[in-house]
Amino acid sequence: MKISVLTLFPDMFTGVFGHSILKQAETKGLVSYNVVDFRAYSADKHKRVDDYPYGGGGGMVLTPQPLFDAVEDVSARAESNKKPRVILMCPQGETYSQKKAEELAQEEHLILLCGHYEGYDERIREHLVTDEISLGDYVLTGGEIGAMAVADSVVRLLPGALGNDQSAVSESYSTGLLEYPHYTRPADFRGMKVPDILLSGHHKNITEWRRKQALQRTQEKRPDLLETAELTQFDRDYLERQKSEKNG
Amino acid sequence: MKISVLTLFPDMFTGVFGHSILKQAETKGLVSYNVVDFRAYSADKHKRVDDYPYGGGGGMVLTPQPLFDAVEDVSARAESNKKPRVILMCPQGETYSQKKAEELAQEEHLILLCGHYEGYDERIREHLVTDEISLGDYVLTGGEIGAMAVADSVVRLLPGALGNDQSAVSESYSTGLLEYPHYTRPADFRGMKVPDILLSGHHKNITEWRRKQALQRTQEKRPDLLETAELTQFDRDYLERQKSEKNG
Repeated sequence: MKISVLTLFPDMFTGVFGHSILKQAETKGLVSYNVVDFRAYSADKHKRVDDYPYGGGGGMVLTPQPLFDAVEDVSARAESNKKPRVILMCPQGETYSQKKAEELAQEEHLILLCGHYEGYDERIREHLVTDEISLGDYVLTGGEIGAMAVADSVVRLLPGALGNDQSAVSESYSTGLLEYPHYTRPADFRGMKVPDILLSGHHKNITEWRRKQALQRTQEKRPDLLETAELTQFDRDYLERQKSEKNG
Repeated sequence: MKISVLTLFPDMFTGVFGHSILKQAETKGLVSYNVVDFRAYSADKHKRVDDYPYGGGGGMVLTPQPLFDAVEDVSARAESNKKPRVILMCPQGETYSQKKAEELAQEEHLILLCGHYEGYDERIREHLVTDEISLGDYVLTGGEIGAMAVADSVVRLLPGALGNDQSAVSESYSTGLLEYPHYTRPADFRGMKVPDILLSGHHKNITEWRRKQALQRTQEKRPDLLETAELTQFDRDYLERQKSEKNG
């Protein structure tokens, strides 16, 4: 896979792309990164990339020319058989999800466009991009941190990217439930103790306790996840019992 | 404000904390960053910070000792009158929102804890942290990118952090609606044209057109936002008309 990022702040990416899983995946040859300052594509003699909005109002708007030219050039150089996904990081986009990450992990080439303070000229949105993604309902200064999140969530799904020791203990969103509580040594830390059951050695009881904890936690904190989680009859009975205990 | 980050990958933060608004805010004296490798606090002779989970299962779990000691030391050094907010970046946390960013922007000291692949020992969750935050429903390798998003969204809210040219053209989530479309020069780019109304000079018509576009776009892409947005009678009438046109 190839991940291209078009940004006015390429140096923001060195830390994240140069460490941990993202770096290891590149070293293993699973992915290559290409962080491009799209200002270099500006046809303006002062290399401007934004201008005042038509119709007035404050703020600046990114002009279409540098981004269209940059995407076309980056696409051509990628020599991919498949058309790239051109992804605009913006608050109007669809809210990012694990399902979307899994979909993007199937692609050959992702091009992530990051604006910064500025708005995007609508023609970029309508005629250049294939996807618009928002990290969530909060305002960030630019699209860069969002692009890092998309890259990280996608790269870790590439086959071979995660070592055995790097897979999460038990992943939320992949099981559909929040994680059960984890404990490690010491068994007593400043008087705070590990639940006895985890020290018991009874594997069947431990598995059952963990499942109940995961169910209970999900019901308390994210009941919406229960609507789509895969639940067994045991799970349903437990949740039903919890509910009647609470109400009774 | 002081923002401390406890992480095993401190170098991941240099790019984001060293550029743009986050850097400028630090230069202006509005905020200071303190990125701490909590491995330095490990009492283990090999400086280990994680261990196998009690009760078995794959993966590793962060032990309580290094994080408890790091938070206590970082809190003491901050010399703040107010207790710090100790924020765990994790998938089980509350989904991050602009409202939460506004709340955190009132604090004196934020301590952001970033795990990486590992789970957290439950005692960290129960006895050390004040908040658990998740960026959204997708899996990231670690808490670092989430901590960057929290820092960025909070720092840009500090009075004086944004210059006039840096405020977004019109911000989603602050108006409660998605943004209207923006256009800038050229009026004709490769045959793609700017809507005539924006070139008309009729400010009243432009304002009305923009509001309608924002309403329409929000209704199409994020109807949930309309439930909490501040709507005028004009807005309600327009949305009603749109709905009956669509259905009729």
